[in-house]
Amino acid sequence: MDHSLTPFFNPQGVVVIGASSKPDKLGYGVARNLSRSGYQGNIYFVNPGGGKIFNRSMYTSLMKVPDPVDLAVLIIPAAAAPETIKLCGQRGIRAVILLSSGFRETGPGGAELENKCLEIARRHNIRMIGPNCIGLLDTHLPLDTSFLQTPLPRKGNIALISHSGAVCAALIDWSLVQNFGFSHLVSLGNQADINETDILSMVVEDPNTEVLALYLECIQDGRRFLETAGAAARKKPVIVLKSGRSEAGQKAAASHTGALAGSEIAYTAAFSRAGVLRAGTIEEMFDWARFLAWGKKIEGRNIAILTNSGGPGVLATDALGNENLELAQFTMQTKTALEKRLPPAASIRNPVDLIASGSPEQYATCLNILLEDPGVNGAMVILVPPPMYAAIDVARSLIPVIQDSKKPVGVALIGGKRILKARQLFKEANIPEYPFPESAISSLARLADRADYLRQPHHSPTRPADINVDRAQQIVEQAASDAWLPAQELETLLEAYKIPVSPIKLASTPEEAAHIAAGMGFPVVLKIASPDLQHKSDVGGIILNIRDEEQTRCGFTQMIERVSAQIPEAHLDGIHVQRMLPKGQEVISGVIRDKQFGPLVMFGSGGVEVEGLQDVAFELAPLTEHQSEVLINRTWAGKKLSGFRSIPAADKQAASDILVRLAWLACDCPAISEIEINPLLVMAPGQGVSAVDVRVRISESNTSGPC
Amino acid sequence: MDHSLTPFFNPQGVVVIGASSKPDKLGYGVARNLSRSGYQGNIYFVNPGGGKIFNRSMYTSLMKVPDPVDLAVLIIPAAAAPETIKLCGQRGIRAVILLSSGFRETGPGGAELENKCLEIARRHNIRMIGPNCIGLLDTHLPLDTSFLQTPLPRKGNIALISHSGAVCAALIDWSLVQNFGFSHLVSLGNQADINETDILSMVVEDPNTEVLALYLECIQDGRRFLETAGAAARKKPVIVLKSGRSEAGQKAAASHTGALAGSEIAYTAAFSRAGVLRAGTIEEMFDWARFLAWGKKIEGRNIAILTNSGGPGVLATDALGNENLELAQFTMQTKTALEKRLPPAASIRNPVDLIASGSPEQYATCLNILLEDPGVNGAMVILVPPPMYAAIDVARSLIPVIQDSKKPVGVALIGGKRILKARQLFKEANIPEYPFPESAISSLARLADRADYLRQPHHSPTRPADINVDRAQQIVEQAASDAWLPAQELETLLEAYKIPVSPIKLASTPEEAAHIAAGMGFPVVLKIASPDLQHKSDVGGIILNIRDEEQTRCGFTQMIERVSAQIPEAHLDGIHVQRMLPKGQEVISGVIRDKQFGPLVMFGSGGVEVEGLQDVAFELAPLTEHQSEVLINRTWAGKKLSGFRSIPAADKQAASDILVRLAWLACDCPAISEIEINPLLVMAPGQGVSAVDVRVRISESNTSGPC
Repeated sequence: MDHSLTPFFNPQGVVVIGASSKPDKLGYGVARNLSRSGYQGNIYFVNPGGGKIFNRSMYTSLMKVPDPVDLAVLIIPAAAAPETIKLCGQRGIRAVILLSSGFRETGPGGAELENKCLEIARRHNIRMIGPNCIGLLDTHLPLDTSFLQTPLPRKGNIALISHSGAVCAALIDWSLVQNFGFSHLVSLGNQADINETDILSMVVEDPNTEVLALYLECIQDGRRFLETAGAAARKKPVIVLKSGRSEAGQKAAASHTGALAGSEIAYTAAFSRAGVLRAGTIEEMFDWARFLAWGKKIEGRNIAILTNSGGPGVLATDALGNENLELAQFTMQTKTALEKRLPPAASIRNPVDLIASGSPEQYATCLNILLEDPGVNGAMVILVPPPMYAAIDVARSLIPVIQDSKKPVGVALIGGKRILKARQLFKEANIPEYPFPESAISSLARLADRADYLRQPHHSPTRPADINVDRAQQIVEQAASDAWLPAQELETLLEAYKIPVSPIKLASTPEEAAHIAAGMGFPVVLKIASPDLQHKSDVGGIILNIRDEEQTRCGFTQMIERVSAQIPEAHLDGIHVQRMLPKGQEVISGVIRDKQFGPLVMFGSGGVEVEGLQDVAFELAPLTEHQSEVLINRTWAGKKLSGFRSIPAADKQAASDILVRLAWLACDCPAISEIEINPLLVMAPGQGVSAVDVRVRISESNTSGPC
Repeated sequence: MDHSLTPFFNPQGVVVIGASSKPDKLGYGVARNLSRSGYQGNIYFVNPGGGKIFNRSMYTSLMKVPDPVDLAVLIIPAAAAPETIKLCGQRGIRAVILLSSGFRETGPGGAELENKCLEIARRHNIRMIGPNCIGLLDTHLPLDTSFLQTPLPRKGNIALISHSGAVCAALIDWSLVQNFGFSHLVSLGNQADINETDILSMVVEDPNTEVLALYLECIQDGRRFLETAGAAARKKPVIVLKSGRSEAGQKAAASHTGALAGSEIAYTAAFSRAGVLRAGTIEEMFDWARFLAWGKKIEGRNIAILTNSGGPGVLATDALGNENLELAQFTMQTKTALEKRLPPAASIRNPVDLIASGSPEQYATCLNILLEDPGVNGAMVILVPPPMYAAIDVARSLIPVIQDSKKPVGVALIGGKRILKARQLFKEANIPEYPFPESAISSLARLADRADYLRQPHHSPTRPADINVDRAQQIVEQAASDAWLPAQELETLLEAYKIPVSPIKLASTPEEAAHIAAGMGFPVVLKIASPDLQHKSDVGGIILNIRDEEQTRCGFTQMIERVSAQIPEAHLDGIHVQRMLPKGQEVISGVIRDKQFGPLVMFGSGGVEVEGLQDVAFELAPLTEHQSEVLINRTWAGKKLSGFRSIPAADKQAASDILVRLAWLACDCPAISEIEINPLLVMAPGQGVSAVDVRVRISESNTSGPC
């Protein structure tokens, strides 16, 4: 926990600088909200003109504000911010919320002003939220530093951390109608100093918070976020709605926040690694948050469905399938118990259909029976307006069963007016309910996903003992930057990390090629050597299965002629000679480096199919042997390595080991911006792999350091 | 239009048989609802005990009910149904709604009773809805034959046809809160006589209906539905929510190709062919229905986004990407016009961000500017509660612009209490609005999908002139059923449809094989011939590239030994000899027959990959050349046929032609239950294709006839 952030969460006294008595000013809103929030510490207002507002005199200067005060909320013209922050420093205040806008979001002039504010803040050891934000709300303390017209939301146990103030404002308003509560809302604005990771690390420790919901448009320091979110997710559910998923969305996010959105592949890999649940929409985020905030645990993915109408029962079954949940199988005891209590027309198989005549008592009894079945991990209860009973009576009957069970129960109340009172009763009992089965089932699935995640072993990747980090770093340091690593260095580099590579030698003349080939032993392969040609096979730059010296000479001459004729502008270094390898499965593996999250290991179908089929998957580096296997198994190329029908199995374990090594290589040498082994030949089990064609790109500087 | 159904939609008089004066009886509910519905024709009640209810005397017998009356609503004990239907017939009534339950849904006894009712109905030329349903509601006529406790829904232009009465009931209740209306609701129950297709064909002609929404759990006669829905969808939007996706989806995932014939695949192909929009949830169905019922048209997929908050703008941009819509590019004129009206901090690029200060006037002006841009096909307006204005003022300002524009506008009002009045105003103006951008954008996308569908040429597939239908039918008729067609007949069959097949001959001895091979010319391929082995390569049952007679003899002997050793129980007919073919791309093609929808053509990656990669797509037979090409292009195998990187192009057109022929073959010979060509070798452009390995299954009888 970062103690410099404590005043934001437990201030000893709050001063609003720029408080105003004019109701059309934001400074009036802030004073009003803070006053009515119920904050128990001292509240001070500063306005150069003095006066009185909300039963408090306004100080004409910050210097006159008495102790204790350790949090300042600034709602002043942007131009006055640097000087005011300085005054805060001089007054001994180390925590500032700068609500004002007119900074980075307005252009270069604003960015300069923002930098100046940050610089002054740093000089005075001040931590700052904002600028261009709506501040902090805490329903439990309570505290409200915003200028929003809505009142403080209901007390609850969901914390929202948001890059968008408008999203905060809209959600508070929405929550008042949807009738759910928040513990904290933190609007981060331009994040000149404090960002999502800082706040996440604080809020996860808050005893009033059960679920953390984050609306993010970018992540500034990917690796730090990953670490913090990963640790947080092991304590409490973390749900992220990351906008800018699509390419167009990324551009839109960039123009909105000025931030670089980072690659979608990296975000996906990072959220998965951290155990963060990724929502697709605001609605989904809060569907899940309400359910996870309930605090129930789930032991497996087998769900019993209980309904009074067949149609919605089938829809719920479909939804289970979509969410990778299972229809629970009932024990004989359960079936007998259900049979005894239900009419013959009812279904005692899953989904259990009470039919339209289902009574409040039948609902409660059957739910109880289902929840006691050891093969049932959770239940989904569906209620359409019962024709012969009041829905509220069904609710009254169900609620104690749901509350008393340790197993989670999703509730879908389908209808409108006739279901309204039942809905209200569930809300009052703090049991999450949904208008349709799909959102309840999606929430059950997230609970199960989280349980799966927590059950996984969480080992840290360890560096293989037999690699030579120094040697690799030396090669990379000495290499030309913004260029592909030459063949000889490449070989040494891979050797240092024990990545088997088929020896490859450069020949400049037909004679030299024949000589090298004879040394290696036939058959060999010839490949055109040129920095300008990345796809050699397209231009006839590969000849396989050369069987003697004469064929080698001849192949050399013809290849040079062919390639020169096709791409006259390509610079040709000569021709690479490589030993022809035994049969195996060809896959692609490699590393790419993401600006926010650093190196990502790639695995998939090699050859031309890598682009056409896009059968590739990514994982953050470094990775454990287990993570490497999971990565491989996510692709069709990886599934084939286990053997499939007439395709014999290959040395999957060796392939997995290579990915671990590639990952460390990229982590240990940050100047490597890309590694591509295409193909990596995976031979029969026990016979290992061989990197047939490898390229490694060295770049001047990479924004993300070693991992 | 089926005139026998007219009394259901425009009855000249309605009699309720089983009307009751006891409020706890369903017969009371029916009488109450019909009385209060406002139905303008004559209403009669029949109850053996007589009496008076809702100001009407009850007749003691149907025979005493005076003319005009042409629709009877039956709410009587199931056992009394056959006799009562007979009475209706005798009374001259030709339309019956049998609301009662206790029929097929209760088991074999009930099914028998239902069959008896149907038989009597048929004998008297009576058309029947139900049993086990909630009947008909028509808000315009008006008419309500249900016993539901909810009042008639609002008048609207959405028709709902539902297999589930409970779904109807819940949706009526829901619509009263959501504030949208229906034209018709038809609950079909057990569909002893009248099914979804019958009703669809009627309702599409109803001038008060703009959109047809169908909740279906099955489809009885796939081809008839396809035809009716296809014709309907060209007149009005048809949205289907088909439940039971997952079970079929599991079948589709089954490992055997034949099992890929899961009906989910057929439903998907059928809905797509018919231009039906397929919703995944009830919510989605009505999100779309409300938007499509609005009646706006769209000319393209380029959308302008207008917002007062950046975050939701980015989320909307993501949603566009998910829905295959595009961010519109603005003309210079549009940009200049926006620039003039907006502050510098606003974004004049798409998404247009008015920022929090966006005024009602700016909203209206900017939306107008955007809608006048010729590059904009539709707009998405997002409003979070504006801090400085009332949301209702923004609504007031936007509504005339939206109403006056020919282009569709999606509206998302994000928030709760502070947005409530604005929401109400949109509802009153009959402009669909949504709580979040995603559902509005998904609705815009369906409008665009529909426009795309209507723009497609709608040719009927024509049978190629050079095929010999009689010859094929003769072979199939003479073939043993429930068996694979023997090799020689297979060859003749394919020849009749001009499907080039590599000649294949059966050899029983090594000598015979050598003789056949010599006759064909080397090299040849040997393949084990056995009705028990469907995957020959798994057991070493294929040898390629046999170059002379000696190798042929030797290969024959070894193969027989090898296969016998592995699968001793397999019956071996001998060995097939086939000419070795030039290089080409191997794909799979075939036909499977679905119970509901008849033959489906399949195309995809051949070899072992058909099961592993599941790169296969399906289309209903028959198909046009264009549909065949589209089918091919949906797969990676098909994309490769056009040439991809170092993979040379192949004769895609010939492949497409083969699919057309295969489709006709299956249509013309309904006894063919399956055709699989795996691999189909597609040679270089202009060089055609060759069916290398073909199997055709003949079945005793197929439920679906020729198409």
